[in-house]
Amino acid sequence: MDKHEAQDPFGADVGVAIREEAPGVVVATLEVTPRHLNQHGTVHGGALFTLADVAFARASNARGAVAVALDTSMTFVRPARVGTRLVARCEEEVLRRRIGVYAVRITDETGETVALFRGTVFRRPEGAA
Amino acid sequence: MDKHEAQDPFGADVGVAIREEAPGVVVATLEVTPRHLNQHGTVHGGALFTLADVAFARASNARGAVAVALDTSMTFVRPARVGTRLVARCEEEVLRRRIGVYAVRITDETGETVALFRGTVFRRPEGAA
Amino acid sequence: MDKHEAQDPFGADVGVAIREEAPGVVVATLEVTPRHLNQHGTVHGGALFTLADVAFARASNARGAVAVALDTSMTFVRPARVGTRLVARCEEEVLRRRIGVYAVRITDETGETVALFRGTVFRRPEGAA
Amino acid sequence: MDKHEAQDPFGADVGVAIREEAPGVVVATLEVTPRHLNQHGTVHGGALFTLADVAFARASNARGAVAVALDTSMTFVRPARVGTRLVARCEEEVLRRRIGVYAVRITDETGETVALFRGTVFRRPEGAA
Repeated sequence: MDKHEAQDPFGADVGVAIREEAPGVVVATLEVTPRHLNQHGTVHGGALFTLADVAFARASNARGAVAVALDTSMTFVRPARVGTRLVARCEEEVLRRRIGVYAVRITDETGETVALFRGTVFRRPEGAA
Repeated sequence: MDKHEAQDPFGADVGVAIREEAPGVVVATLEVTPRHLNQHGTVHGGALFTLADVAFARASNARGAVAVALDTSMTFVRPARVGTRLVARCEEEVLRRRIGVYAVRITDETGETVALFRGTVFRRPEGAA
Repeated sequence: MDKHEAQDPFGADVGVAIREEAPGVVVATLEVTPRHLNQHGTVHGGALFTLADVAFARASNARGAVAVALDTSMTFVRPARVGTRLVARCEEEVLRRRIGVYAVRITDETGETVALFRGTVFRRPEGAA
Repeated sequence: MDKHEAQDPFGADVGVAIREEAPGVVVATLEVTPRHLNQHGTVHGGALFTLADVAFARASNARGAVAVALDTSMTFVRPARVGTRLVARCEEEVLRRRIGVYAVRITDETGETVALFRGTVFRRPEGAA
């Protein structure tokens, strides 16, 4: 079990991999396989959300506080099919003492947008009650 | 492979089960196991979203049209831990010719709310181009 | 200046009136006039949001804490025209120590849904820093 | 009555002004006055939403189709007070045949983020039924 699996069991189980991590920016990927599909034969909303959520959790927990997701929204723009390599890029939009806001864009290999995500975290300083 | 797996491979892979289906109402469940956790040791947002999304997809596709998710929002209210049996109840809020809106409440065994979800679908009549 | 104007200047300016207030439930109304329209000649999203937000703020601030809106989402279902009397009914979905979640449905005189809103507040106990 | 008022009566009534318009980008402003406040003495969520919505409607209707808002989300990050000049910058995130997605960031004079908005439109080609 590598560090990512230990840190994020569901993300690892689904097949999400972290590719880049820098302050305020995380890039994660998912290769779409048959297990990721929905009843229409395209990638499941739950798989797309998991991909975005992994990047969001990593980015928001890299800021010296425990960050817990409160609200998220996701817009599904374009279907993706088996064999596609999806890339999720998470950027920090706002960082305040108690809240952070993050945006994720998921694209396919051609650079087209597949889904857009935004999430808000509540931050609890490390060591605080 | 049973009908649910055939219809919704990712939902089945994650462990979501459909318990009830009636016009406009779907109930789905998920037993939280170690694979469903996030880095905080509680149920992953991606697993909760998948549970809600399965119920949403079933409810919105039972109305004589192909329903494709467009926008979703989810609020995470309370963590859930391994061993919890989560119940997602999806209800139809609006049904129009081209759009439908659905709300899902996820509760734990004590009836406490774990997460709230709302989603909008775009509907394409069956047989239409 | 009546109590409502003093409490909520923008809501009063726009023409929102509070009709009912009970623990966890607030009903507010707005009569659509020409000033409330958008470029399509139907009620403006900003007017609908204001109507929902007034009910949300009243409901969430009636719980022994200062409640500040954090995240909101709104789905626009059906246009409304001049002369329509819109009714917004806000119900409490979740009340915890630090957060509350509220849903608002806006309907027209025929009972048809015009818009759906959901909002999350962060709660700061009265007297707290 | 200038062109903006004719096009968007509620936006004009609230005091929103369009400052820039280019393909895919619109900038709108609002000077916060006492009429724009809520019960906490800070700018009302309805006024912030109206500011964002005006920019969103202008940007999405400048693309050769009638664009009607379907889903929106807004995160309130920081209060703004009387005398503040708010600037809303709307950028197009996705443009497809039938849908468009737009993001708006509202900032104050110091460049700090006051609120973030995202909206999805359904597009109906001009002249179509």
